[in-house]
Amino acid sequence: VGVLGGLEAIRALQNSGFQPKRSIELILFTSEEPTRFGLGCLGSRLLGGALEPGAAAGLQDSSGRSLDAVRQKAGYEGMLDAVRLRQDAYAAFVELHIEQGPELERDAIDIGIVTAIAAPASATITVDGEGGHAGAMLMPRRHDAFCAAAEVTLAIEAAALSTGAEDTVATVGMCDVFPGAVNSVPARVRLSLDVRDIDGPRRDAVLGVIEAASCEIAKRRGVHITCEMLNADAPAACDAHVLAAVQQACSETGATSRVMVSRAYHDSLFMARLCPVAMIFIPCRGGVSHRPDEFSSSRAIAMGTAVLARTLARLSLS
Amino acid sequence: VGVLGGLEAIRALQNSGFQPKRSIELILFTSEEPTRFGLGCLGSRLLGGALEPGAAAGLQDSSGRSLDAVRQKAGYEGMLDAVRLRQDAYAAFVELHIEQGPELERDAIDIGIVTAIAAPASATITVDGEGGHAGAMLMPRRHDAFCAAAEVTLAIEAAALSTGAEDTVATVGMCDVFPGAVNSVPARVRLSLDVRDIDGPRRDAVLGVIEAASCEIAKRRGVHITCEMLNADAPAACDAHVLAAVQQACSETGATSRVMVSRAYHDSLFMARLCPVAMIFIPCRGGVSHRPDEFSSSRAIAMGTAVLARTLARLSLS
Repeated sequence: VGVLGGLEAIRALQNSGFQPKRSIELILFTSEEPTRFGLGCLGSRLLGGALEPGAAAGLQDSSGRSLDAVRQKAGYEGMLDAVRLRQDAYAAFVELHIEQGPELERDAIDIGIVTAIAAPASATITVDGEGGHAGAMLMPRRHDAFCAAAEVTLAIEAAALSTGAEDTVATVGMCDVFPGAVNSVPARVRLSLDVRDIDGPRRDAVLGVIEAASCEIAKRRGVHITCEMLNADAPAACDAHVLAAVQQACSETGATSRVMVSRAYHDSLFMARLCPVAMIFIPCRGGVSHRPDEFSSSRAIAMGTAVLARTLARLSLS
Repeated sequence: VGVLGGLEAIRALQNSGFQPKRSIELILFTSEEPTRFGLGCLGSRLLGGALEPGAAAGLQDSSGRSLDAVRQKAGYEGMLDAVRLRQDAYAAFVELHIEQGPELERDAIDIGIVTAIAAPASATITVDGEGGHAGAMLMPRRHDAFCAAAEVTLAIEAAALSTGAEDTVATVGMCDVFPGAVNSVPARVRLSLDVRDIDGPRRDAVLGVIEAASCEIAKRRGVHITCEMLNADAPAACDAHVLAAVQQACSETGATSRVMVSRAYHDSLFMARLCPVAMIFIPCRGGVSHRPDEFSSSRAIAMGTAVLARTLARLSLS
């Protein structure tokens, strides 16, 4: 919807004979989802200067190959330094996206006008225990890395719930167990950690609670736990001027709307470092995304695209 | 040590001019470790009749390929039915193995004489929850399969500890998370379960406790948990006559010895269905096995092989 909706909005403006004062461009970001290199929004991070080109080049996939090596093998020449945009490259940036939450569908609202994007943080947690034979290593002698990781996982869940704020979420989405055999006591476990909040300091407090819990678990179980932060980005506030343009576009289109925050993060989070931004959300079925059954109706997509087109028109004249 | 020790024991007896009354054979079992088909001791299970050939042929690997299909592709013709041994095929069976525990090394004893082999059970536990976006799916709405699996894992550990018997062990050695992305709430988790005890009914009671705990967790968290048993074998007692032969061989060799149980299981567990068995253990460093640093000294291996040779000689004359 982000890419094709943008293309369709521009085409519709062209077909209508609309003449912008500012040029309207469509950006196709690469690697918005967390890539094999463990970091989401790789493209917009580099465009927006949130990631140093040298640091990006050195990112490694699970087999130890660097982004730079993979880029070269794929035929890309030159350094990533050239990617960063100037601060005055754009007057405004607007992103169309599905809500990825249940509110708009539930309340039958056409458009979500996003006023802020939650601050994401992600990390890799590694638990080093002691491996051994699942039959021969007696329970009191064990320093089972997976049992420790299970406690860490529940501590992460408890830490997110403890803020009492619905905007705090924490997730362990990946778990690798080594050596990974039915009859081997786990010697090492690697967990991914994803923590987000609209409130940056509150998110960082949750990270602190998780770290303290990990220390306690490590000490009690005789294992070693390390936490390597991959990113801890600030939240982004959307721009009043751009928001007003979206609001106006909704009125002109006859779309019902609601202001809301985005708990998922998007390329807009990093484009906000360069220029004023806003986001346009459309309803999706059951709030579901990142699953094969992710779905938005043609009507919802058309409505979002129409609002985007009118927003672009307005911004291109100001 | 099992294969080369057996070969060397037979060679030593030949070189010494020893003339057995019964023939002495070396069996090389296939797939003693849990294979891609999820079951250990595949060879001796079939030889000993602990696994029906039809059931074995239908075992599938993680990509859904059956043992039968893989066998055919590898050039094996004919059915597995022909594999099963007659009840009178062997008068006795002896297996040489490292202890996989710390006792012999710690107490500087040359040989462990194994009187019983613990009863192993293994299962696959599947937790089905609800996936979604790690940012957009709020904590109170979640049915996170990995958080539920973490609780199941800790319940398994607690169940093993609750018997108060050092012979009870339980392990979760494998964990697969789906979809397995840093920003996706886990929708499904698959755990391997391994439970063992010298006491069969006590082991089954632990399995019952784990099942009850899983039910409670599933209900409370709104997830679905299934437990598919892969095997639940009876323990095996070693034979007094064969044990006496090992004991005598230790005396003749000048090896110090101790009677002990095997908490790991071995091909002997299934050979015990066909004929009298016993096992000979030698010390290994730190009780470690199933790890790259698994180690037994040349002296320990030579001592075990000498005891094996004299045991075989004695049994082949009776």
